[in-house]
Amino acid sequence: MVNYPNMKKPLTSPLTVRKTKHYTAHRGMSLEEDISLSNEYYLTFNKAVIYKKPTPVQIVKVDYPRRESAKIVEAYYKVPSTTDYNGIYRGKYIDFEAKETKAKTFPFQNFHKHQIEHLEKVLQHGGIAFVILAFTMLNEVYLIDASYIVDAYYHSKRKSITYDTVVKIGHLIPSGYHPRLDYLKVIDLVYFKEDK
Amino acid sequence: MVNYPNMKKPLTSPLTVRKTKHYTAHRGMSLEEDISLSNEYYLTFNKAVIYKKPTPVQIVKVDYPRRESAKIVEAYYKVPSTTDYNGIYRGKYIDFEAKETKAKTFPFQNFHKHQIEHLEKVLQHGGIAFVILAFTMLNEVYLIDASYIVDAYYHSKRKSITYDTVVKIGHLIPSGYHPRLDYLKVIDLVYFKEDK
Repeated sequence: MVNYPNMKKPLTSPLTVRKTKHYTAHRGMSLEEDISLSNEYYLTFNKAVIYKKPTPVQIVKVDYPRRESAKIVEAYYKVPSTTDYNGIYRGKYIDFEAKETKAKTFPFQNFHKHQIEHLEKVLQHGGIAFVILAFTMLNEVYLIDASYIVDAYYHSKRKSITYDTVVKIGHLIPSGYHPRLDYLKVIDLVYFKEDK
Repeated sequence: MVNYPNMKKPLTSPLTVRKTKHYTAHRGMSLEEDISLSNEYYLTFNKAVIYKKPTPVQIVKVDYPRRESAKIVEAYYKVPSTTDYNGIYRGKYIDFEAKETKAKTFPFQNFHKHQIEHLEKVLQHGGIAFVILAFTMLNEVYLIDASYIVDAYYHSKRKSITYDTVVKIGHLIPSGYHPRLDYLKVIDLVYFKEDK
């Protein structure tokens, strides 16, 4: 199981050591970092090409303290119009959003409406779309197909998804050292099962 | 033909009017804006889901002048590890970089090495990867399959691509009012020809 949020990290990997600070300083980053490390692993072993998109920022003012370097001195976070992650795996377009919760219920208000619409469109165009949801207190991370999330977002009365539902309709992502979160293994099972 | 860089814009579209300022102020933005408007068009008519990735920025310092708002006061541009555009069309993963040149030769040094490696990986994984190259003085925009660019980047002695070569191995992108640059039409012809 993944150890959120007080994960013990081996001290042998320079990449891990460098990032340890973030784990305790910004607990919200742990899932993101695990996914990024997994993506690096997939990239290194040429299994998939999946990246997190840069944080969308509205740049207002840029200074040039030295001729060759630009320093952004005024900028603001923008609401993302898409999900955080996309790429290609086994010839298919992959698109997902990652979220975490300390509670046993995840409220849909944590999604931007744009993101739900985006996931819906990706499904319509034949892509693989899902949400990775981490229950940090339980150290469990699940992959949930976007079709469920999109449907429940629009039609469920609860406006949230419970842990019990996720266990039923989602797929537990195996975790380990390398890759941290082997979500491609789940994609193989869920989306490529006829190829086995 | 596309009119770079002194394009006359009809005054009827609010979207176009709003952006007119950028066209003359930052000539380099014209191709990017045309692609963004085309992507909006494709999205509106549900033809494809293709976005420009946000500019990668390293955020160093954030102020909170008001409780609810974050102001980034120190940040720097980062070298992108991937291309600018990706998404899904007809079930396929699409990935491309857009560049423009005033000259009749485009030097490869305008690509980051990471971008070439990225295009190469996308091809390996079965995606559609290409470069959109605008010759601004000629008002012509071409789609060039990434396999050519990757090969020439590593093996050509010139370390550049000439207009004459682009005409031979590339595909002229039809342009008009809506969408501005109909590059999906070229994708249909080049990558989906067996479906016709």
